[in-house]
Amino acid sequence: MQKRKILKPKPISGFPEYTPEIRRVEMRWIDTIRETFERYGYVNIETPSVEEAETLAAKGGDVDKEIYGLQRLNDDGEDKGARLALHFDLTVPTARYVAQHFNDLTFPFKRYQIQRVWRGERPQEGRFREFLQCDVDVIDQDGISHDFDAEIPLIAMQALNAVGAGPIRFMLNNRKILTGFYQGLGIENAGDVIRVVDKIDKLPAAEIERILTGELGLAADIAKACLALAQIRSTDNRFADEARALGVQNDPFEEGLTELAAVMDRLNASEKGACVAEANLGIARGLDYYTGVVYEAQLIDYPEYSTICAGGRYADLVGAYIKSDLPGVGISIGLTRLFAKLVKEGKISGERASPTDVLIARFPENDVLALDRLASQLRTRGINVEVYHETAKLKNQFRYAERKAIPYLWFAGDPHEVKDLGAGEQSQADPASWLPSRLQG
Amino acid sequence: MQKRKILKPKPISGFPEYTPEIRRVEMRWIDTIRETFERYGYVNIETPSVEEAETLAAKGGDVDKEIYGLQRLNDDGEDKGARLALHFDLTVPTARYVAQHFNDLTFPFKRYQIQRVWRGERPQEGRFREFLQCDVDVIDQDGISHDFDAEIPLIAMQALNAVGAGPIRFMLNNRKILTGFYQGLGIENAGDVIRVVDKIDKLPAAEIERILTGELGLAADIAKACLALAQIRSTDNRFADEARALGVQNDPFEEGLTELAAVMDRLNASEKGACVAEANLGIARGLDYYTGVVYEAQLIDYPEYSTICAGGRYADLVGAYIKSDLPGVGISIGLTRLFAKLVKEGKISGERASPTDVLIARFPENDVLALDRLASQLRTRGINVEVYHETAKLKNQFRYAERKAIPYLWFAGDPHEVKDLGAGEQSQADPASWLPSRLQG
Repeated sequence: MQKRKILKPKPISGFPEYTPEIRRVEMRWIDTIRETFERYGYVNIETPSVEEAETLAAKGGDVDKEIYGLQRLNDDGEDKGARLALHFDLTVPTARYVAQHFNDLTFPFKRYQIQRVWRGERPQEGRFREFLQCDVDVIDQDGISHDFDAEIPLIAMQALNAVGAGPIRFMLNNRKILTGFYQGLGIENAGDVIRVVDKIDKLPAAEIERILTGELGLAADIAKACLALAQIRSTDNRFADEARALGVQNDPFEEGLTELAAVMDRLNASEKGACVAEANLGIARGLDYYTGVVYEAQLIDYPEYSTICAGGRYADLVGAYIKSDLPGVGISIGLTRLFAKLVKEGKISGERASPTDVLIARFPENDVLALDRLASQLRTRGINVEVYHETAKLKNQFRYAERKAIPYLWFAGDPHEVKDLGAGEQSQADPASWLPSRLQG
Repeated sequence: MQKRKILKPKPISGFPEYTPEIRRVEMRWIDTIRETFERYGYVNIETPSVEEAETLAAKGGDVDKEIYGLQRLNDDGEDKGARLALHFDLTVPTARYVAQHFNDLTFPFKRYQIQRVWRGERPQEGRFREFLQCDVDVIDQDGISHDFDAEIPLIAMQALNAVGAGPIRFMLNNRKILTGFYQGLGIENAGDVIRVVDKIDKLPAAEIERILTGELGLAADIAKACLALAQIRSTDNRFADEARALGVQNDPFEEGLTELAAVMDRLNASEKGACVAEANLGIARGLDYYTGVVYEAQLIDYPEYSTICAGGRYADLVGAYIKSDLPGVGISIGLTRLFAKLVKEGKISGERASPTDVLIARFPENDVLALDRLASQLRTRGINVEVYHETAKLKNQFRYAERKAIPYLWFAGDPHEVKDLGAGEQSQADPASWLPSRLQG
């Protein structure tokens, strides 16, 4: 054994990595989410990790300075192509994808996408530089059915229930309620008001009111009305009456209330498991591009923790690429953010890392080719099998199985015998019919 | 409908992207490969897409100038951390991972890893800037069982057979055969000779001989012997006798022949499907770090196409990180390279993109909440269901199902009826027991 200096490898801040035990849980989560999306008939797409830097920067908004550009370490100037950068979400790539493959897609185009995205943020709790997003969107031509306003958050709830992510509050609003209400009050800078009111969960109400009357110059009663609207929340349709009681009347306001009530009705008629649907007229989702229903979800047990799922309805996905508008509704589950929090809080404990059902023991008297054939026969029947990698004392093979939590130890012979290491029982087994409990019935 | 200027989105060269139909096949391939790896008891790990640039550059060798470094587009100089870069393979990240999580792993550590890697290469056929690698390796402490020399290529063969990748030739050699042989001939610059001989499939034999006698200054009979060795190939164990007949005798040479013969015996006793195992004393795998068996696989139908799978045995994975040597055996399937070639050659045709089994038709007389409940009932039973997104004429709903190749159209009512769109037959169905053919038996 050669001795040498040891360099301690260090994790890179903001880039999560797990032991095989935790990774196995994460893989099961991803499989389950994917399965849930497919239960609703959504198709998978994947896009490259990069887009042209120009495309991303044009859409980046406040994430602009967080975009990672690529540059070869020893650039010899040979590469004359456009500057490339890692995508910071899955929306911009999807817009480009839909435009590029427009003629190959069936509309309404129901797609899901589960990929890593990158942001050069300062790492802190709930913020990562590389993270997995699970997006589900429907995109249609010109109009898009309001059915999807309810289906999209419902799919997210089903997926989060299926992985067992625990109690989650989905807060829903409709941008038309806000813009209609502000318009009815004669407010001109509705966008600014939305940005301020969106902080209602982070700042005290009095502070919000101060900003509205101060920086934004609203009259005191107008600011009070804005605040009153933002404080309305209900898990049924009472929100609509409470909002109407504030005295504003106009078409977009009424349309927004009606649309949101329809979404709440449909969600409340559905199985929501550990999720709660709450109409919350205080959430706005800062992004300009939402035009109807908006969603924002948080872990009920960790109300201080950042949003783990968000989305909404937009009037046009693809912007300059296509002649006509392509409106859509979508939601994005921040899987890494959610998963990392539950791991940190001890809500997720690693499973056994090994997928192995059976370890075939190996002794000097065994013919290795015969053990190979036995393993192959079992594998063909869907059983995950390892043949111990050398002849060794039973004790050592036993310890290996134990450390990997392999449930069965197989002794080849005539007859074969299998020891159930959990129950401690050993019995005869026929390789042509024996099944581990994982595969029984 | 708003009219505007259309920007044609363009694909970025070297970054593959598929329509949903082809992506569905790719997903099935990945699932199948993963399943195969787990059949043999290998555990999954994932590492971040980036490592510190220093770590990568130290190991990069000739890919050094192809490494993509990350830099925020509008860097404000705030980020004082180490320079980060995208990994160019999965070996360097695995080495760092094993060192970092050393105490959490069970050895022999059998791991697989399916991730994207990046290389800033000039794109050309078979070369991508972003591509998916499927790696399977066993790493042990100090020694490692020679069992794995055969198991590793066998797993790759099983995986490639399972996805139906078509006839593939696995060429095997052992570096000890080469180094022993050259040593026996009194050649001092064995590494240089290996690099030249490795080109035997690309250059004519006479040209190889010229380089050996010219640039490398070998005597004519020595060069001839090197060439003779490199031309030996057999699908059984005749290679060993032919190699011995060249008259060299020493321990490493003999050890290499014995090890390779054992691997060939084990492979030839196994089910190899559409794969061929060939001992080929002309392949060397340029990388210095292989020390025993080496593998290289190519598509038999496209012999000019680049290697689609390669690997071998190495004496130490982790270098400076750990006190003792961690030897291993591994292989990497270049999934993107392989898949893209088969797509290009028309060997892979897209499936229907949609996972939907049943489209529930929707007419003005239907209560949408009742359709939701029906859909939910079917989904709980594992059926993938869409409810048509608006009330519409049967013709339109029919066309939608047809374009997405959805096999069943469901008419809610009392009784319910289901139309099998393939067979054209319509019959009564009970939502509590009906199954699409995909889920039957």
